Amino acid sequence: MTILIHNATLLPCTPDMPVLGNGWIQVDGATITATGSGPAPDLPDAEIIDVGGDVVMPGMVNPHCHMAMTLFRGLGEDVDDRLFRYILPLERKFVTPEMVRAGTALAALEMIEGGVTTVADMYYFERQVGQVVAEAGMRGVVGQTIADFDPPDHRTIDEGFALTDALVSEFSGHPRVTPSIAPHAPYSTGMSVMHRVARWADDHPGIPAQIHLAEMDSEMEWCASNHGLRPVELVERTGLLRKGLICAHCLQVNDREIEMMARAGVGVAHNARSNGKAGRGIAPVEAMRKAGIPVGIATDGAMSGNTLDLFSQFAPVSMFQKLLGRSRKPMPAKEVIRMATMEGARVLGMDEHIGSLEAGKQADLIRIDLSAPRMQPIYDHYSTLVFATMPGDVRDVMVAGQWLMRGREVVTLERRKVLRDALQVAAQFKAEMTRIDETGDGAP
Amino acid sequence: MTILIHNATLLPCTPDMPVLGNGWIQVDGATITATGSGPAPDLPDAEIIDVGGDVVMPGMVNPHCHMAMTLFRGLGEDVDDRLFRYILPLERKFVTPEMVRAGTALAALEMIEGGVTTVADMYYFERQVGQVVAEAGMRGVVGQTIADFDPPDHRTIDEGFALTDALVSEFSGHPRVTPSIAPHAPYSTGMSVMHRVARWADDHPGIPAQIHLAEMDSEMEWCASNHGLRPVELVERTGLLRKGLICAHCLQVNDREIEMMARAGVGVAHNARSNGKAGRGIAPVEAMRKAGIPVGIATDGAMSGNTLDLFSQFAPVSMFQKLLGRSRKPMPAKEVIRMATMEGARVLGMDEHIGSLEAGKQADLIRIDLSAPRMQPIYDHYSTLVFATMPGDVRDVMVAGQWLMRGREVVTLERRKVLRDALQVAAQFKAEMTRIDETGDGAP
Repeated sequence: MTILIHNATLLPCTPDMPVLGNGWIQVDGATITATGSGPAPDLPDAEIIDVGGDVVMPGMVNPHCHMAMTLFRGLGEDVDDRLFRYILPLERKFVTPEMVRAGTALAALEMIEGGVTTVADMYYFERQVGQVVAEAGMRGVVGQTIADFDPPDHRTIDEGFALTDALVSEFSGHPRVTPSIAPHAPYSTGMSVMHRVARWADDHPGIPAQIHLAEMDSEMEWCASNHGLRPVELVERTGLLRKGLICAHCLQVNDREIEMMARAGVGVAHNARSNGKAGRGIAPVEAMRKAGIPVGIATDGAMSGNTLDLFSQFAPVSMFQKLLGRSRKPMPAKEVIRMATMEGARVLGMDEHIGSLEAGKQADLIRIDLSAPRMQPIYDHYSTLVFATMPGDVRDVMVAGQWLMRGREVVTLERRKVLRDALQVAAQFKAEMTRIDETGDGAP
Repeated sequence: MTILIHNATLLPCTPDMPVLGNGWIQVDGATITATGSGPAPDLPDAEIIDVGGDVVMPGMVNPHCHMAMTLFRGLGEDVDDRLFRYILPLERKFVTPEMVRAGTALAALEMIEGGVTTVADMYYFERQVGQVVAEAGMRGVVGQTIADFDPPDHRTIDEGFALTDALVSEFSGHPRVTPSIAPHAPYSTGMSVMHRVARWADDHPGIPAQIHLAEMDSEMEWCASNHGLRPVELVERTGLLRKGLICAHCLQVNDREIEMMARAGVGVAHNARSNGKAGRGIAPVEAMRKAGIPVGIATDGAMSGNTLDLFSQFAPVSMFQKLLGRSRKPMPAKEVIRMATMEGARVLGMDEHIGSLEAGKQADLIRIDLSAPRMQPIYDHYSTLVFATMPGDVRDVMVAGQWLMRGREVVTLERRKVLRDALQVAAQFKAEMTRIDETGDGAP
C-alpha cells in the first residue's frame, strides 16, 4: 500500500532543517520511500492526501516519561510534602497492572493527540506499558524500574531483574516496542545495583538503560556523604555511564562531568517544565549540546510537568537557556525543533530509523494546522511551532505507516473507555486522600 | 433580558477563591445580578444555558499589550539585532492607522478566542485601537504612547499630548473603553516629559497612565549616567509614581523600590514570557505581591511573547517564582488565577467593576471545557487551569452581558477579513525585509 502526502509545508528535520514549500512524501508500508518539494510523483495506485499547505514534520520524541502517572496529574499541586503525604502511599496501595494500564492508555491518548509518536517510559509493571504502547500504535522504549525503596512491583532487586528479563523476552524483536532497564537513580539503587546493571547491560547489547541523574540537592548530598562523589562520577565508576544510557534531568553537572558524559556517549532527556515547577534549577543544555551530547525534550510524568505534549515544553526550554545566558540568542527555535525530533531520536539510539523524514526511515509523521489567528502571520515556521503552536493544532499522526489519529480522532484507542478507566482510579485516589487528610495517616 | 447560566463549575475568583459545584449565575443586561451553587432560581423569562459542568470564571485581564504588534509575531525571532535591523525601520515605514487597525483586530480575535476580555494597550494611533476594541466588544484601557524617538504618529511631544487629548475626548464616558496616557519609558521620554505627564494626570483624575519600567540593563545605565538614579527613583522624582500608574515589567526593582511602589499605589504588569524570551531576568513577583502591590499577568506584544492569551503565561509565571525560590512552594496555581482575574483588574483600577463574578459587577465571563485527556483527571481546578488548559479549551466569552464568542465562533469580528488584512500587511513586511537583507539598509 502506497500513500502520497502532498501540498505540504514539509519540515523534514534533516541536518539543514529546511522548510520546503509544496512538499510531498511517499510512504510504502511502514517506510518512507521518497520525499521532495515541487511537483509530486505520479503514483496511480497510491492513496493521495492533499494536506492543504499544513506542516508535515517527524513525529516528536519524548525521551523521559512515567506514562501511568497521568493518574496523579496535578494531585496535591500546592502541597509541600505531597510526595510523602500522598504520592508514595497512593503508589504503594494502588499501583497494580490494571492501574498502570489505565494511566498508560490515558498518556498514550494525550501524546498521540499532541503529536508525540515515540516515548521512553520508566515505571512499574512495565510489561503493561509495553502492551498499551503496542496497542496504541506508538513507538516506545519501555524501562522496568529497579529501585530499593520497596516499589509496587518488586520486593527485592533480584525480582526487579527478573521483571526486566521477562520484559526483554516479551518484546524482543517487536517492531515498535524496545525493552529497557531502568535503575531508578543513584540514591535509590546504590552502587552495587548499578554495577550489576552495568554487567547486565554488557550481556544485553542494544538494550538501552535509563536513569534519573543529577536532579536534586538531596541526591548530591547522598552521593557526597556515602561515596564522596558527585552523581555523574558515581555512575561512571560503576561502568554504567556508556553509550545507550538515557540520563534524565542532569541539572547539576559541571564542565568536567559534561566532558565525561560526552566521551561516554550518553544521551540526556531535558525536562524543563518538571524542573521549573519543582524549582530545582535549569539544566545547562547549551553547554551539554556544545560538548556533543544529544539532548532531547521530555515531559517527565504528568505528576511533575502536568502535560505530555512537547509544545508545552518548547517555550520553557528556550526561555530557560536565554535566562541562563542573559540574552535572546541561546536556543533558537530551530534548535528546539531539532531536539524534539532528530536529537531525541539520537538520545534513544533510534536515529537510524526515526527523527527525520527521509527515504528509508520509518513513516512516523504528524500534520499540523497553523491557521489559527494565534499563529498568524508566519515569518518563520520554527518560531511559530515553538512559541505559538499547541497540541490541539496537530491534525493527523502516523507511526510506521499506520494512522494513529486522523482529523483529531485517535483511531487506535477507545477514548471514552480510556477516560472512564482513568476516572475510576482517580476516584479511588480521592477517597484515599480524604482518608489520609482525616486520619493524618499516609500508611495504607 | 435575563440570562441564567447553570450547571457550572463556578470559579467566582472572590477572595477565598472557591470552586463551586452546580454553580449558577444570573445576568441582567450588562450586569451580574446573582450567583450561587445548588438549585438555580426559577426564572421563567430568562434564557437558560446549561454549561454541562464546564468551568465558568471571570474573563481574564491582560494588563500590558501592544495589540497591533501581532503583525510582527515571530519576525526575526532568532536575529540578534532584530530591533534595529527590522522592527524600527518597519514601524517607521508601515505603521499607519490602517495597519494599527489590522493588527489590533487580529489581536482582539486571538484574545477573545483565548478568554481575555480586558486588555491594557499602549501603541501608536491609539484612537484606532480604541475603535477596534469597542467594535470587538472587549474592554480596554487604550494608552497613547508618548516618546522622543520619532515614533510613527507624532514628531513632537506636543503632538503626542494632542493625540492623547483627542483620545480622551473620543472615549470619555465610553462604557468599555478607557483612554490612557502612556509615556514610553524613562529613557525614551526623559524626566521633563514625565513631569509634564504627571501634571497632565493631575488635571485628568481617573485616567490611568502606563509605562515600561525597570526592564533593561540599558535603561538602568541610562538612568544612572544621566540622573544618578534607578528607574523607579527617577519616576518617583517626577511625581508620576502614583495610584493609577500601570508599570510594565519591573524586573530590576530592589526592596526599597518595591516599598516605594507599594506606598505610591502603583500596579504592575508582569510579562513572564516576554522577559524570559529576551533573557532579561525574572521579576520579583512574590516580593512585590507580599508588599501589597497588585501584579497582573500580561502578554506584552506578540513580537515579544508571541501569543496573547494568558494560559501561555501561567506556567512560566509560576515556574519563574519557583526557580527564584528554589522550591515548589512559591506562586501556587490558585494565586496565578487570582492574578489573571481580580488582581489584574486592580492593576487597571477596575476592580469595582470586573475581575470576579459577583452580583453588581459587569458580566465579563468565560466558559472553559476541561474534558480533553490532557486535563484529566482533575484533582484541583486551579492546577488544571494553570498547567494544562490551553486557549483552545475556552468555549464561550461574554463581556458586559454580550456574547463575543459562542462555541469557539467569535461573533463580533469577521474572522476571514481580519486574517486577510493581517496577511496583506505581513506580505509588505516580508518584501521590505528582503529589501533590507539585500541592501543591508534598514532605513526606508
